[in-house]
Amino acid sequence: MRSRDPTASPLLTDLYQLTMLQAYWASGMNETAAFELFVRSLPPGRNFLLAAGLETVADYLLGLRFADDDLAWLASTGRFDAAFLDSLRDFRFSGDLDAMPEGTVAFADEPLLRVTAPLREAQFIETRVLNLVHFQTLVASKAARCVLAASGRPLVDFGLRRAHGGEAGLLSARASYLAGFAGTATVEAGRRFGIPIFGTMAHSFVQAHDDEATAFADFARAQPGNVTLLIDTYDTARAARKVMALAARGVPVQGVRIDSGDLAAHAREVRRILDEGGLASARIFASGNLDEERVAQLVASGAPIDAFGVGTRMNVSADAPFLDCAYKLVEYAGRPRRKRSEGKATWPGRKQVFRRFDASGTMAGDLLALESDAADGAPLLAPELRGGARVGPAPTLEAVRDRARAQMAALPPRLRALAAADPYPVEIAASLRALAAQIDAQTARQ
Amino acid sequence: MRSRDPTASPLLTDLYQLTMLQAYWASGMNETAAFELFVRSLPPGRNFLLAAGLETVADYLLGLRFADDDLAWLASTGRFDAAFLDSLRDFRFSGDLDAMPEGTVAFADEPLLRVTAPLREAQFIETRVLNLVHFQTLVASKAARCVLAASGRPLVDFGLRRAHGGEAGLLSARASYLAGFAGTATVEAGRRFGIPIFGTMAHSFVQAHDDEATAFADFARAQPGNVTLLIDTYDTARAARKVMALAARGVPVQGVRIDSGDLAAHAREVRRILDEGGLASARIFASGNLDEERVAQLVASGAPIDAFGVGTRMNVSADAPFLDCAYKLVEYAGRPRRKRSEGKATWPGRKQVFRRFDASGTMAGDLLALESDAADGAPLLAPELRGGARVGPAPTLEAVRDRARAQMAALPPRLRALAAADPYPVEIAASLRALAAQIDAQTARQ
Repeated sequence: MRSRDPTASPLLTDLYQLTMLQAYWASGMNETAAFELFVRSLPPGRNFLLAAGLETVADYLLGLRFADDDLAWLASTGRFDAAFLDSLRDFRFSGDLDAMPEGTVAFADEPLLRVTAPLREAQFIETRVLNLVHFQTLVASKAARCVLAASGRPLVDFGLRRAHGGEAGLLSARASYLAGFAGTATVEAGRRFGIPIFGTMAHSFVQAHDDEATAFADFARAQPGNVTLLIDTYDTARAARKVMALAARGVPVQGVRIDSGDLAAHAREVRRILDEGGLASARIFASGNLDEERVAQLVASGAPIDAFGVGTRMNVSADAPFLDCAYKLVEYAGRPRRKRSEGKATWPGRKQVFRRFDASGTMAGDLLALESDAADGAPLLAPELRGGARVGPAPTLEAVRDRARAQMAALPPRLRALAAADPYPVEIAASLRALAAQIDAQTARQ
Repeated sequence: MRSRDPTASPLLTDLYQLTMLQAYWASGMNETAAFELFVRSLPPGRNFLLAAGLETVADYLLGLRFADDDLAWLASTGRFDAAFLDSLRDFRFSGDLDAMPEGTVAFADEPLLRVTAPLREAQFIETRVLNLVHFQTLVASKAARCVLAASGRPLVDFGLRRAHGGEAGLLSARASYLAGFAGTATVEAGRRFGIPIFGTMAHSFVQAHDDEATAFADFARAQPGNVTLLIDTYDTARAARKVMALAARGVPVQGVRIDSGDLAAHAREVRRILDEGGLASARIFASGNLDEERVAQLVASGAPIDAFGVGTRMNVSADAPFLDCAYKLVEYAGRPRRKRSEGKATWPGRKQVFRRFDASGTMAGDLLALESDAADGAPLLAPELRGGARVGPAPTLEAVRDRARAQMAALPPRLRALAAADPYPVEIAASLRALAAQIDAQTARQ
């Protein structure tokens, strides 16, 4: 028997969501609230974000409910009023979700999504919504850099083993695929999301055999049509010659993988051996501690590497393993709200991002404005849920991937570079500044 | 209906595990293999690891099986032989697991666990075993530093929202608790693992009310006995005076939380206000971008902070978001094995770690030796599974936490400091060096 899915539990949240809910319930507060999720600042050296996670948020909201055993456990803690817990039996998400479609390029301060719902619903979902959007946007943004660095060479996600838990492995396969990776090694991600799956062999396969040539022959026999042989277990050049000997016996070999040492130097030597032996069609796959910087170096070196396996450093976004993001109340009961905590002040009101393009279709600047403002440019946030139901079918992951590709193609060239560039212009509308000043004046007495 | 748990799927693995399995099946290879999981090097600035994840590995191994729909999906990929897939119906973990008990202090090159099983079983489990042990050891090791920095003040895990997915949130609550945290904000971790749960209120609770004093009063009324009020939404000192006014009306207030600005300065001012108003018993809780360095600074400053909420930077191990760990074949069919890839060579054979202590009970040095060696010191790897079954009941999480506390108390004082210290001595036994040389001589012809 499989255990119940802990990632689908409504208790996958912070305790304070439930204590606040009880307080709202006790005082009867449940007017319409609007919360927005945004990133306060880009990580050092990063030029853009790629929004991701929206569809998993919609699934979470549509599936949210408390089961009997959830409520029984909460009752057992002694922290909650029985009538309050009983009210949670009918708790559903009945509100609206507006969001940047997945694969949209985004910047600091821009809302990635807005939830508009009765206060208790909009508050309760904070933790898991952040958990889903933060991580997928983090990985998609990192993976997008790898894609730009690879200049068209395919990339495969190899990172499940060092991802932070199982869900991170699955969601990073999804986020990297939507950012332009060719696929993943994670089988469950193939089943769950329809992502192409890739795999070669491990060093242990070679080591378990008494000699490397037998290991290659055994593998090729068992996987006709899918023979990529790992050649760095002992001596890479010698192993490449064993691959040639196998091919000379008529065994088809599609490619080889190199996972250690000087990848560029090994790739050149192996390419020469393969070409001289008549295996020009065999592809060279490189992996091992790669990230966008290493991939860019290998591409720039002209190394004859056909594809890259990128794992840990992409899956954990090693240079920036978190984003400074928040989900903040911007309106309650028709009144805009603002937090003023030092260094963490937020823009009030329901907002929209308007994006302008130049004549060539390149992004020219964003305007962060009130939703009600009439502004030039394409609005980025679009309706996703209305009254707790989807406004249309969810896009396919392929469509999201296409969007990401088009969005990255529209980036100003300086922002497509790996190095930190002059920031993309995001202007704050005068209407928004005026509203913030007005609220500050009202709450100064606080 | 909840979806099936993706983190319990046997397909939560790398594709190559299945392609290798098919090759082993086709050639009839299934002799006993031993694999060991170890960390190649400590992250920069780190002095020790705290082993964690073993119990979740045991649960994974004991529950491992392929369901009909798993096999049907694999068949649909067209990559597998039908008879091979059929053989997976009876696939179970029938082997042995030896491991450092959770909460054991560990170092580079030391096996955290060893799996000894028929080759196909021992190989197949690699990805998920690494995924579970890597992440929990990563977080426990980071959390241990926070515990040392806090010098006895309680710490609470606040990190679910920016953990890498839901399972990461749950497992980091578990790993930080076993390392000595007082508890977590994550409700599901409380249910699943019996960890104490803590919660206060969010800024949005204050913002949703028309004034802060009403927010405090509403919250206190709904949570008698559990009133910790967040006081930095607008002006921290003014909010502290509102807390005093509430207390003066006879409402019990257990504590306040400060989440922004100069935490030490705010804590001093708030402490003065609370003490002058007769609320000397109210505790001050601090949070906001904390990690072990910030906690140590706040403790050293003498700031009157009673407890810390530590989130993101602990849950993602921000300074070192991954460990360079591996799961490597060390023996097959009775013969020790070794990988020689450049920069990634491994020690062959089934190993044991023997730990010596000085007269005061302080750790004096480890010896990495062959399991069959007779060496001084306490052996660290202990039997956990034999023939696919537990050798005894799983320890409680409390017992694991006690072990971690005792282990950290036995660390040489220099290694308990946050700054990088002279490394702990881990000696490689002469027997092991000799075996490695012997294997290198045998495989030089490869």
